[in-house]
Parts: sequence; C-alpha cells; structure tokens
Amino acid sequence: MPELRQDPATKEWVIIATERMQRPDEFCRPAARPIQPEHDPDCPFCPGLETRTPPELWARRNAGVANDPGWSVRVIPNKFAALVDEGNTDRHLLDGFFRQMDAVGHHEVVLETPVHNRFIHLMSTAEVEEVLHAYRARYLGLRQDRRVKLILIFKNHGEAAGTSLTHPHSQIAATPVVLAYVRRKCEEAIRYFDATGRCLYVDIQKAEGQSGQRVILESGCFLVFHPFASQVPFETWIVPKRHRPSFGQVSTEELQDLAGVLKESLRRLAVLLNDPDYNYVIHSAPVDGEDEEYFLWHLEIVPRLTRIAGFELGTGMRINTARPEETALAMRKIAT
Amino acid sequence: MPELRQDPATKEWVIIATERMQRPDEFCRPAARPIQPEHDPDCPFCPGLETRTPPELWARRNAGVANDPGWSVRVIPNKFAALVDEGNTDRHLLDGFFRQMDAVGHHEVVLETPVHNRFIHLMSTAEVEEVLHAYRARYLGLRQDRRVKLILIFKNHGEAAGTSLTHPHSQIAATPVVLAYVRRKCEEAIRYFDATGRCLYVDIQKAEGQSGQRVILESGCFLVFHPFASQVPFETWIVPKRHRPSFGQVSTEELQDLAGVLKESLRRLAVLLNDPDYNYVIHSAPVDGEDEEYFLWHLEIVPRLTRIAGFELGTGMRINTARPEETALAMRKIAT
Repeated sequence: MPELRQDPATKEWVIIATERMQRPDEFCRPAARPIQPEHDPDCPFCPGLETRTPPELWARRNAGVANDPGWSVRVIPNKFAALVDEGNTDRHLLDGFFRQMDAVGHHEVVLETPVHNRFIHLMSTAEVEEVLHAYRARYLGLRQDRRVKLILIFKNHGEAAGTSLTHPHSQIAATPVVLAYVRRKCEEAIRYFDATGRCLYVDIQKAEGQSGQRVILESGCFLVFHPFASQVPFETWIVPKRHRPSFGQVSTEELQDLAGVLKESLRRLAVLLNDPDYNYVIHSAPVDGEDEEYFLWHLEIVPRLTRIAGFELGTGMRINTARPEETALAMRKIAT
Repeated sequence: MPELRQDPATKEWVIIATERMQRPDEFCRPAARPIQPEHDPDCPFCPGLETRTPPELWARRNAGVANDPGWSVRVIPNKFAALVDEGNTDRHLLDGFFRQMDAVGHHEVVLETPVHNRFIHLMSTAEVEEVLHAYRARYLGLRQDRRVKLILIFKNHGEAAGTSLTHPHSQIAATPVVLAYVRRKCEEAIRYFDATGRCLYVDIQKAEGQSGQRVILESGCFLVFHPFASQVPFETWIVPKRHRPSFGQVSTEELQDLAGVLKESLRRLAVLLNDPDYNYVIHSAPVDGEDEEYFLWHLEIVPRLTRIAGFELGTGMRINTARPEETALAMRKIAT
C-alpha cells in the first residue's frame, strides 16, 4: 500500500509508492561512466588553460601567482552567469501588471581540484576540506555585498544533474531576492519556533537520531540520514549538531569533520549506485536571518535517479518509489 | 544581460538568462523519435489485450461490451497506482514527530485512442474532443468521493516527461489533501482577489492579451500564450475566457473549442521542436473551492527540453534560457 508522508520542513506531502517499489540496487546506474583522464588538454578548468576562464576571485595555491597553474582550489566567475554584478534591485512594472528587475548578484564556479578526474568521493579528506574552506571564504566574501539576500552553494555532478563539464567543480550563487521557496521554508520554521521555542531543523535531526531507522552515519559534529519524507530515492541530509543558521558561521573544526562525512556519504552512494548523477546543495538562512534561531544550515544530497512527470508538475507532490528506511539500511551496510 | 521576472501566480522569480540564450530552433529534438506501428501486439493499451489491464471505469465505444475491443477512449485504474481507493484520511503521528496517512484517492489512466501511434497532435479535432469528454466525465465522477480534495488531469509524453509506455494516454489523480504547492497558489490568488476584487488568472490572461507579445493564438473561448515569467522554454498556457474555477465546470462548447486549440498548440510544438517530450496539466481549484471566484482553471503545457540542476533545487527559482517573446514569435510563425 502506498502511503503519504508530510515533510516537516515544507509541510508538503510525498507519496511513498510501495506498489512501484524498487529494490535499492535497481536504482544503480546501468552503464559505467566514461573514464576520464587525470588531465584533459581541452578542458578549460584544467591547469594550463587559466586564460580561457575569467580571472580568479580566490585560490588556494601551492605555487605560482594569480591565474597561473599551481592552485589546488580556484574560484572564478561563471562565464555564463545567471546573476551578474551589474544593475540594482529596483523592481519595474511592465504593461502595468508584470514585475521585472535586474538579475543582479553573483555566480561563481569553484574548481575543486586541478585533477580532471578526482571527484569528491575519490579525494583525500584533506582535499575535500580545502574545497569546503573555499566555500566558506566565498560565502563570507559575498555576504559583504549589501544587495545579496541569499547565498547558495551547490554542485551538479553528471549530465542528469545538469552539468556539461566533467572537471570537478561546484557553484555559488548570490541572489538579490529571498526566493518564495526559501521564504516559505523560513515561515514554516518561524511558525514552529513560535509554537515550541525550538528550531525545527534541530528537532528534525533529534527525531531522526532517536528513531535511528533512517540514519546512515554519525560523526562528532554531524548526523547523516535519509529523511522521513524523502522526495527522491537516496535523498541524503547532512545536518550539523551545533545550531547555526548560516553556513558562513561554520567552524574550522566542523569543516574538517564535514569533509570526512561528505566524502563518505558520496562514496557510499557511488559504491551502491555505480557513481550516480547527483546534486548537493548547502541550505543557509537568508543573509538577513543569520542571527535568527529558527533555521539551521545543512547540506542535502539529491541523487538524480528518477524524473518528475506531470503529476509532480501539477501538484508539487513527489512520488518516491523507495522507502527511506530501506535505502538507509543499504547505505549503512556499505563497509567503511 | 540576464533579468529576473516574477511569476504573478506564485510570486516566484525566474531568471531569463540572456547570456546563455539559445535560438528557438536550438531546442529542437536532435534525433527522430522511433517510428511506432498503428498496432503493437505487445502493448497492453492496444485493443485486444484488455484483459491485461484492470477492468475499465469508463469508455466511449463504437461496438462491443465493457472490456472488449471496440472502444475509442477507455479509462482504467492505474495498475501501479500512487493513490488507492482504500483507507481513510486520518493522520498518524510517528515517533511523536512525523506525520503520515494512507495514500487514499484515485489514480486512473485515460487511453486516448485505440491507435498505438496517434498522438494528440496527429488526431482529428473530433478525436481530441472525445478525450476531453472523458476527462470531464471522470472529473465529475471522482468529485463525488467526499475524501477527494483535488483532481489533477495530466499527460506525460516521451521519456524525458516521465513515461515508459508509448501508447497515447493521460492520467487522472485524485488526492486526499490539498497540496502545499496548490494551497500557496490559492493563497496568492485570494490575496489578489481581496485587494482588487478580480480573479488573478483572468487578469493574467487580460494582461497577456493586451501586451500581445507572447500570444500564440486566440479562439472563441481560449487564449494561448507563453507566459511572461515562463519557467521553461516554450511553456504554453491555454486559458479559458469564461471564468470558471474548476475544469468540472467546462461547457461542451468549450470542450469543442479546446480540442482544436490544444491540438494546434501541440502540433506547432511538434513542428518547431521535432516532436518534443512534454507534460501537460489541467489546473483546477480544489474541489471545495469550485464556487470561489479567485481561481480560473487552465491548461499548462511544459516541454521537457532542459533539466533542473542544483541551483533550482536550492532556490526553487528556474533559469530559463529562452525569452518567451521570442519563442511565442516562433510559434506564431508556424503556418496553420
């Protein structure tokens, strides 16, 4: 029998459709991903072609000067930026009805490694940590811009996840508006805080930890689980134990811990599902809400194993064909 | 320069990303769809294999009795139903925190034609009209179930749109909850109605009609356009001129007109984009809101030409790489 589960963060219902239930291994990528070289002379993100990208905004380097090879992590503006550092936040009314504004903001690319085929789950923990340091540095840099309302750090891995470039990279977007989707999640969290005096996300983490059925692993600073109302098979949340609304407030100790936990979560997905396409997203409170107690930053991994169809487009409700208790069990069984 | 546009129906912003702008013909399906026969002896939706599907709920037939061949449109329960006619709408609290309920409701399949390869854009207008009559009949049937809160009629065409079966079919889902996504659209429409005394969707249609830049075609009963804040390239809305909240209230005259307009819209998409994968969805007010003035039923066609990535997952904001003014112009240019 299918069942409905309510996502406590959005109050949206999801259908866990047992009639279509697939075993965890049925979500496995059917064919191997094409093998990539360590260095691709045509890849604009590989060392040596720095002039084919816009000048770097930030880098961690072992040698060389800006825009030379010798970097280990490099942040550059997105050449096809969806948000640009021009214009202002004035809204304009068109035809007396429609509202429009400049797409002012920032859109950056984080080159995670000079090695063309070293994806996060194949990196050393120290290498992952360097990537996370870059995230934090750019988050703190971008929040200086008074026009910025929200900073999103995310990664697209594989074609189904929306990337065309193979070289390991993530992106950072800084938007001039708090999006309606984010605003609604905040409103739910505020409503919960007003009723209980507690952060909704802290309580989600506690409830998942106490239930234990959907927990994958736990470190000193983080709990990793497949949430009760998972929208998609193998959706994975990494939630910090220390209560801070924004990723900009993450501590160096937490970054070190997160490096291991993120790598291990992605490694287990890669082992179990044959290196699936996925996105991950670091959710933070809007910049103006960094001192509010109602939100807790966290990282969500969304494997792209299924597609949405008309049902989801029309209702906003997902049909998840896997039970998170079963996918979490499969993830726990992978040897460390 | 990219720009932000606000969707008046959801208040969500969308990025129209001119830097990545593609010409309309670049969205064309790269390879031809595999040619299908008129009859596939292995297809459970083709006439002759009626015993391989659950017994029919409704049919228009030229000959034969129930569950025999001789039907021109046939409605059956979905064999892999996400919502089932068992259980009740009680909510249960699990582990003192998580909310769960039975996935009670209905999930039906509309076999649009006995001809395996006669897709809507290839049908006669009279054939499309028969399909629409089936939609209305089932809508009116399902709304008799007091547990049903929302009835969604939708179609998945092609693999990228989430279908695995080729035979022309659509689906009807009746849910036991008003989904948060639908509730929010209603709330926006109510807020607009309270401020202006007018239906938001009527005003969207009027503003699109007056601007004219994004209009594709107009019939006696409908206006077809690419909306100002299109979420995806070639998103197409078909909006009735007569103000009725629910598709259940559509008149026979309107169904006749809609048949021609829907067929023509899909035909132009097929000509321009080489038979793209798409979904369409008929949006109606929740069943309990059928007498409210704030909503207007309408049909949205969503071609599946692009994928969402981490940016969209994290913000809820889409990046649309085509300007609806340009895609509408390309659609207008297709000869009738």
